[in-house]
Amino acid sequence: MSRGERLAELVAERELDQLFVSDLMNVRYLTGFTGTNGACLIGGEELVFFTDFRYTERAKDEVSPEWERPKAERELVPQIVGRMSGRVGFEDSKLSVRQLARLEAAAGDGVELVPAGDTVEQLRAVKEPEELERIAAAAELTDSVYEWALERGLRGRTERDVARACEARLRELDAEPSFPPIVATGANGALPHAEPGQREIGEGELVVFDMGALLDGYCSDCTRTFATGELDDEAREVYELVRRAQAAALEAIRPGAVGKEVDAVARELISEAGHGDSFGHGLGHGVGLEVHEGPRLASTSEDELREGNVVTVEPGVYLPGRLGVRIEDLVLVTAEGHRNLSGLPKDLQLVD
Amino acid sequence: MSRGERLAELVAERELDQLFVSDLMNVRYLTGFTGTNGACLIGGEELVFFTDFRYTERAKDEVSPEWERPKAERELVPQIVGRMSGRVGFEDSKLSVRQLARLEAAAGDGVELVPAGDTVEQLRAVKEPEELERIAAAAELTDSVYEWALERGLRGRTERDVARACEARLRELDAEPSFPPIVATGANGALPHAEPGQREIGEGELVVFDMGALLDGYCSDCTRTFATGELDDEAREVYELVRRAQAAALEAIRPGAVGKEVDAVARELISEAGHGDSFGHGLGHGVGLEVHEGPRLASTSEDELREGNVVTVEPGVYLPGRLGVRIEDLVLVTAEGHRNLSGLPKDLQLVD
Repeated sequence: MSRGERLAELVAERELDQLFVSDLMNVRYLTGFTGTNGACLIGGEELVFFTDFRYTERAKDEVSPEWERPKAERELVPQIVGRMSGRVGFEDSKLSVRQLARLEAAAGDGVELVPAGDTVEQLRAVKEPEELERIAAAAELTDSVYEWALERGLRGRTERDVARACEARLRELDAEPSFPPIVATGANGALPHAEPGQREIGEGELVVFDMGALLDGYCSDCTRTFATGELDDEAREVYELVRRAQAAALEAIRPGAVGKEVDAVARELISEAGHGDSFGHGLGHGVGLEVHEGPRLASTSEDELREGNVVTVEPGVYLPGRLGVRIEDLVLVTAEGHRNLSGLPKDLQLVD
Repeated sequence: MSRGERLAELVAERELDQLFVSDLMNVRYLTGFTGTNGACLIGGEELVFFTDFRYTERAKDEVSPEWERPKAERELVPQIVGRMSGRVGFEDSKLSVRQLARLEAAAGDGVELVPAGDTVEQLRAVKEPEELERIAAAAELTDSVYEWALERGLRGRTERDVARACEARLRELDAEPSFPPIVATGANGALPHAEPGQREIGEGELVVFDMGALLDGYCSDCTRTFATGELDDEAREVYELVRRAQAAALEAIRPGAVGKEVDAVARELISEAGHGDSFGHGLGHGVGLEVHEGPRLASTSEDELREGNVVTVEPGVYLPGRLGVRIEDLVLVTAEGHRNLSGLPKDLQLVD
């Protein structure tokens, strides 16, 4: 079954007559369209794709043939509401309040617009074989850029210099960064969202290094924490703690496991070691067309893992003013448990 | 007066007790904060900035001192609604339907949330001297990358190769592309949003080349159409037509002019020449922190130009299957009319 057909089934299950999809990444997932103005209406036997006249040619090339393509006008809203009828779901987590108001004003009396966010996201969370191949390729490329960066050495270079060099390297390899790389050394490692700065990487420091590739439309995401020489006891202990927590969480990944349960496996180990307050983010998130998507692994997440999900597993401990450690793999949920898409070693690595 | 104080005046003018600002670019404009989770509440004598605990340190460094910074918690919504009271405007063009529903569910009885989009955008449209300097620097850098690209030559290279080289050059110069550059040759030029592809730039073709820099937080945007050798009569005539339309529209730029009037100046010239249907986009848009912002120059725009606006002026003619021409300058609206921030020549240039 095509993505459009599977979505039509979900639409029926949710007791909607139609689903209006306006998020461009969802539109791309469903139809293949990569332009900046397009939308879909799914329901009954109909799969309809709308764009404006600027993208007529591109839509002809890109949009898969199961989608009806009405002649494109300048404005999308009149075209779309003209085809709406009955109970029509919309993507409430994406559509702005103003966009909804415009649709409601334009729609006929027989149309009831109801929130139905995350319907396409539900499909996207379970990857198809072709998608998996692309994600795995992006992960492999990321590994190779890590290796390339370590060969060039970290010590004596600034965080920013290392990050910029990796971005350039990804582009040389026909990819893009899936997000701006993080390189945070020493006390900067305690800022989970530090921007790489002019701080020079010294000797005997922990360097948190978080990077991913966007290749062929799909993302990867991987973090390692490296040591530039011998560490003090505290740094070594925190590293080993995060390493153990990450390994334990990986073992908990399997179909049926709930996001908050997997998160708790890592969080309890870290809490028992007295660092519970220092792990201030969720354990992981789905990755695919976007670097953050479903399902979520976090203390509040009820998401149930399914075979075919691709998620990060990335516990961290951050000690303000001192250091940070985060270790992150990208893994596929399989029938048996998981398959790791990140191939880099996780034993503490001393690098130059 | 600071941006926050000026905004507080607008809030009072709109008969709001408070304005809730959630769009991150607007938050950045008001406070200086560059993280990915922050919001502001403005009203009465209060300017309050909220973020989560991950960004406490960054907020301390970046957020200007006139903003109160309550202790950051993990979740923003409870913090924010706790400070809301009365008639509170929200950014309806940015806030999602779901985000609004969450705020409404969490807010107390004394809070009425009302749409108040584009309030901060109104301030942003009028540039301060320091902002102008940055935009002018971004425009100058873009000019230099055009010159660099022409020196390397266009003929015999693919569109994609030229575009990628310019992106890399912008990054070498410590900028980023403000959008993915467009390089569209021959018949591809007729697709206003073509993605640079594997088509090789031939001899005697028109090449539409649209590029901008993001430098120091501010954007530029400039289009030129070059000829790779002698053109046929149709191509030369279309070029001269767009050239005249662009010059005429520039002359119409002044404080008080309305967006649709300026658009009409160019559109009428193009229509008189029989190409009215081939100019299928608006004449221009504001540029600043974002490459598309207010005011708009378009056939439906009631926006009135003000001194300090920075707008593009970019008419085009697109003949499907044959060619396209677009010429775009970035200009500042001055008391006398305009000052052009794009320095490249607009006479038809024959390039290699």
